[in-house]
Amino acid sequence: MIISDYEKSMLKEGERIDDLQRNDLKIIQSKDKFCFGIDAVLLSDFAEVRKNEKVLDIGTGTGIIPILLTAKSNGLSFTGLEIQNESAKMAERSVAINHLEDKVSIVNGDIKDALKYFERESFNVITSNPPYMIDSAGELNEEDEITIARHEIKCTLDDVIREGSKLLKVSGRFYMVHRPFRLVEIFETFRKYNLEPKTMRMVHPFIDKEPNMVLIEAVKCGKPRLKTLKPLIVYREQGVYTDEIYDIYGMKREE
Amino acid sequence: MIISDYEKSMLKEGERIDDLQRNDLKIIQSKDKFCFGIDAVLLSDFAEVRKNEKVLDIGTGTGIIPILLTAKSNGLSFTGLEIQNESAKMAERSVAINHLEDKVSIVNGDIKDALKYFERESFNVITSNPPYMIDSAGELNEEDEITIARHEIKCTLDDVIREGSKLLKVSGRFYMVHRPFRLVEIFETFRKYNLEPKTMRMVHPFIDKEPNMVLIEAVKCGKPRLKTLKPLIVYREQGVYTDEIYDIYGMKREE
Repeated sequence: MIISDYEKSMLKEGERIDDLQRNDLKIIQSKDKFCFGIDAVLLSDFAEVRKNEKVLDIGTGTGIIPILLTAKSNGLSFTGLEIQNESAKMAERSVAINHLEDKVSIVNGDIKDALKYFERESFNVITSNPPYMIDSAGELNEEDEITIARHEIKCTLDDVIREGSKLLKVSGRFYMVHRPFRLVEIFETFRKYNLEPKTMRMVHPFIDKEPNMVLIEAVKCGKPRLKTLKPLIVYREQGVYTDEIYDIYGMKREE
Repeated sequence: MIISDYEKSMLKEGERIDDLQRNDLKIIQSKDKFCFGIDAVLLSDFAEVRKNEKVLDIGTGTGIIPILLTAKSNGLSFTGLEIQNESAKMAERSVAINHLEDKVSIVNGDIKDALKYFERESFNVITSNPPYMIDSAGELNEEDEITIARHEIKCTLDDVIREGSKLLKVSGRFYMVHRPFRLVEIFETFRKYNLEPKTMRMVHPFIDKEPNMVLIEAVKCGKPRLKTLKPLIVYREQGVYTDEIYDIYGMKREE
């Protein structure tokens, strides 16, 4: 990967540019902050964005999901909403170094104020890789960026789904990655806001291990009937991804 | 398998005795009626029955689940409730040929009248392999025994869970096998009647296929937190079970 002087000029102290292995896309990350994980990559692959659709990513962090979706789909526009000012600024710089300003916009704001920024029923697709952990008030440093990305401090699962439902057109699709231990609550909350879970895929680190992630597609005003896909297995053996994961990452396979 | 004259005398026309491959247990089935499937065998294995616990199987059919559970657990008593008179009679004869009258009792009745037959909060464990298919009134022969076993004609998912919850003690466990396409509704209905889904296992015919069954454990007044187990795979290759299935069936493995 070649990093230009312009790109270097976009970096702040402690930041680096990572290669996304797809369409020459790059992303700015900082070792002291929340770096994107496999969760975001799998969600970008699981989400289906059709031609000319408008997409919103709730809690976009570094902007990884909208940026990857520009390469993986023919969507019209990709908006990333992020509550943390520094993360939003970093995401904007990543959009700039990829010259994606026409397709991707980053909004620095709170999902609980969604209707201040966006029109009701204006998106075809919503994606979200929200904080997984239920807030344990008092035990956490609630100002810490990584803590905010991982714990339900600034927003809850209910906030994300409730506001997402308002912004989604009828028959629009909501794609989420989360932890399986909260699956019952996730289904319940989707239904509470008129989003019917339609597709689910469990992600297992190894074939003989419990899943540690779940990918879910819910459809606004959809008819009840869940399709569970075959398991997505991450590692074939210790340190070696399965072919499917190599394909999703756009990487060459280990021989 | 040796069939005694006494056993032969218990058979009606069209009936046969099948070997359950475990503790010399046998079961009476009829080729014209609903024969137990792998669903019931997997549920009997998935259900955990502790010493001296009281177990109720809702919609017991031929009595397969209570009979298998006598071999797989140290439970105190096993009751099978069955609405169809002929199936209930056949199950009673299976109890007799296995000399299990002290442990297993069959009740011929409707789950919707559960409190006529059983005391509220009197069971530690409930099992059920209920009809999977949502009733399509008019298209079905509603008198046919197999149709009644497969379709929600005599009882719905809501009936089974609602009445089951009344009969379960606090902290008692409800074990169900069902189809994954109804998982959202299953979770919702369990929660509606104060049963928290705690453990789930998807059953896939092959490792690279979608699941066609799901095993669920729900706990009365349990705390929310779902554990999803590793997938249960039925076939290693066409016609050859995986080792886990051979173990569950108590059969010798193909070499």
